[in-house]
Amino acid sequence: MSRFDQFFSDLAKKLKASEIRELLKWVRGKNVISFGGGFPSPELYPVKELAEIAKRIIEEKKHVALQYTLTEGLPELRSALKEFMERKDGIKVESEDNILITSGSQQALDIIGRLFINPGDAVIMELPTYLAAINAFNLQSPRYYGVPIDYEGIIVEKLEELLTKLKSEGVKPKFLYTVPTAQNPTGITMTMERRKRLLELAEEYDFLIIEDNPYGYILFENMEIKHLKALDKSERVIYLSTFSKVLVPGLRLGWVIADKEIISKMALLKQSLDLCSSTITQFIAYEAIVSGLVDKQIKILPGFYKKKRDAMLNALEKYMPDGVEWTKPIGGMFVFLYAPEQIDTHKMLFKAIDRGVAYVPGKNFYIDGSGHNTMRLNFSYPSLDDIDRGIKILADLLREEIEKTKA
Amino acid sequence: MSRFDQFFSDLAKKLKASEIRELLKWVRGKNVISFGGGFPSPELYPVKELAEIAKRIIEEKKHVALQYTLTEGLPELRSALKEFMERKDGIKVESEDNILITSGSQQALDIIGRLFINPGDAVIMELPTYLAAINAFNLQSPRYYGVPIDYEGIIVEKLEELLTKLKSEGVKPKFLYTVPTAQNPTGITMTMERRKRLLELAEEYDFLIIEDNPYGYILFENMEIKHLKALDKSERVIYLSTFSKVLVPGLRLGWVIADKEIISKMALLKQSLDLCSSTITQFIAYEAIVSGLVDKQIKILPGFYKKKRDAMLNALEKYMPDGVEWTKPIGGMFVFLYAPEQIDTHKMLFKAIDRGVAYVPGKNFYIDGSGHNTMRLNFSYPSLDDIDRGIKILADLLREEIEKTKA
Repeated sequence: MSRFDQFFSDLAKKLKASEIRELLKWVRGKNVISFGGGFPSPELYPVKELAEIAKRIIEEKKHVALQYTLTEGLPELRSALKEFMERKDGIKVESEDNILITSGSQQALDIIGRLFINPGDAVIMELPTYLAAINAFNLQSPRYYGVPIDYEGIIVEKLEELLTKLKSEGVKPKFLYTVPTAQNPTGITMTMERRKRLLELAEEYDFLIIEDNPYGYILFENMEIKHLKALDKSERVIYLSTFSKVLVPGLRLGWVIADKEIISKMALLKQSLDLCSSTITQFIAYEAIVSGLVDKQIKILPGFYKKKRDAMLNALEKYMPDGVEWTKPIGGMFVFLYAPEQIDTHKMLFKAIDRGVAYVPGKNFYIDGSGHNTMRLNFSYPSLDDIDRGIKILADLLREEIEKTKA
Repeated sequence: MSRFDQFFSDLAKKLKASEIRELLKWVRGKNVISFGGGFPSPELYPVKELAEIAKRIIEEKKHVALQYTLTEGLPELRSALKEFMERKDGIKVESEDNILITSGSQQALDIIGRLFINPGDAVIMELPTYLAAINAFNLQSPRYYGVPIDYEGIIVEKLEELLTKLKSEGVKPKFLYTVPTAQNPTGITMTMERRKRLLELAEEYDFLIIEDNPYGYILFENMEIKHLKALDKSERVIYLSTFSKVLVPGLRLGWVIADKEIISKMALLKQSLDLCSSTITQFIAYEAIVSGLVDKQIKILPGFYKKKRDAMLNALEKYMPDGVEWTKPIGGMFVFLYAPEQIDTHKMLFKAIDRGVAYVPGKNFYIDGSGHNTMRLNFSYPSLDDIDRGIKILADLLREEIEKTKA
């Protein structure tokens, strides 16, 4: 009980520090191999190029780069993204009015939560799904419905079952949130067949789809994958992406592609949230696109991260005891691990840290309280050596824990 | 009726484009003298210095400048601000944990609204007050109570009357929002006597005070003014400031000083809003403080804006017809004008634009629907010549309008 409790809103009272976040914060700087974060590898950051770009755009654009810009986003950046999306992602954007620049994808998630969710509204999430999307939507107190995924992405048959059931109960979901490509936390990519079926179901049962695509430029295999937004014929998909993974997170810039009316509502809300995103960083992002720096990054990233993924998959294969399974991501930054049912990865985390390795307990990615025996392992940040060493430590610990439960 | 209406939340349905904002947007680029915006004067932007700083910090801090940083803010910047606040503002900050970096002050307003306001909660606002604070708090559907200001700031007797009345009705206000120094929209500065009384009342009636201080470094006279936060003995004041006016708006950075518990709740929410503010711009702001650039700006700003204020006050004196009054700001960027009761400045705006001058109708700054005969005039952005020419046009129009109502 604090003296400020009487002033706090119900929302404020609900907010609790994430145990995991505090733990991982505490781990930072210690001699622990961290598979916990979701950071890109800093070795790939184009430091020199961005330093030059930052100087040049401020010198050239002068007071325009230092002034407020439009809430919707810097016009130059929106134009560049329109062209970029068509060229790189096969998404035909009708006009700049279909694009909103956000302060990271996270802001888009918050805005979407506020614009679409009334307390108690039905929202469909993958099991598991991206933790920070859950946190953003939680602020609006939705009623979640979960649909499991397998190695081909969301199980559309299970989704259809759920939709039929909801319909019979008179419940109409507002939207389904998905990271269809190189998902966080599993690294799983939805097949084309499932993508098409998902869109059909959205049409049939009339709900929106939030397609979150931070990892689409980090694919290790040549895949014939089209974004849901590229397949979307009726403006049902709200597409989110970000410069954080393809360029650098320090810009804090993302973008949304959606129907004009939705973009205009989003901008109207954003006006009250931060007026506009930083003009300086928007000009840097703009220059990074038009100068070809982003294209260059897109060429380098997959090969670099593929080595790390391979190192992790090899180590898992080499060290993990029987009964432990994991995903084989074809892109992104994460492997998801399934330990035997009797293992509680949350409880085990303290022991793991004690032995010098950290991860995120998978439970945090499930909206239904399941996933107690899973964990997310990040391979983009640790070095190749650390990946091997860390997975060995983890495998030894898991073996001991499994043995213990057998005894 | 749109096809997305069925998906939008109640909040989204409530959001309407501001007529004024659309109008002023439309005016942009046209041959109109604008007293409408609230932009700092770009002539003052230290372009060369910031270009150099941007390059240097990215080169020196490398991947740290390009990575995510803590939600609470870049540690270096928080430390620099702690020292800066004590040195420049006489605000003794106990520790860095009392500081939160926000994506502009606007984000602080949104966070405060969400953390303190349940729908229907009582919030006290000055009459008039800052438009974007109203917009941010509106998202939480508070019940507003207004207290008029005069040339000495908020009328504390009226405030006390209101507080007594509210108490008798069993209504406990959550907070009072004030811009006590060189207020937006009036330019009025609260006297020391009133400041002290306001703090006493906050203590007696037990409410929080949000002190928004964007203009504290742009004062034209030597004033013996202390910030409410500097006088605050019981952590009742949540202090907001920003780099937008003292340095450049394009950074989109502000800061909050408050009790540790409040800062920690704010950070907890911010985590779901944008993870963190841009690391790059935070390093730029940090360097601007420690290199002395901000100090340099603080020396230049007041003299420069004083000339513009003088030009506006002189023009008003010279051209305005009888019956028109206005404030004499001792700082900031705005003069507030009171036309005779029979004038509707909202209706008049279209004629004004037609003649080549724009302003913001004052009604927008009142939470109680009053102020139909007032307007806000910005003097920081237009040139000295434009100020004289624009005020003459406006005065001629006002004279005609006043004559018309007499006829």
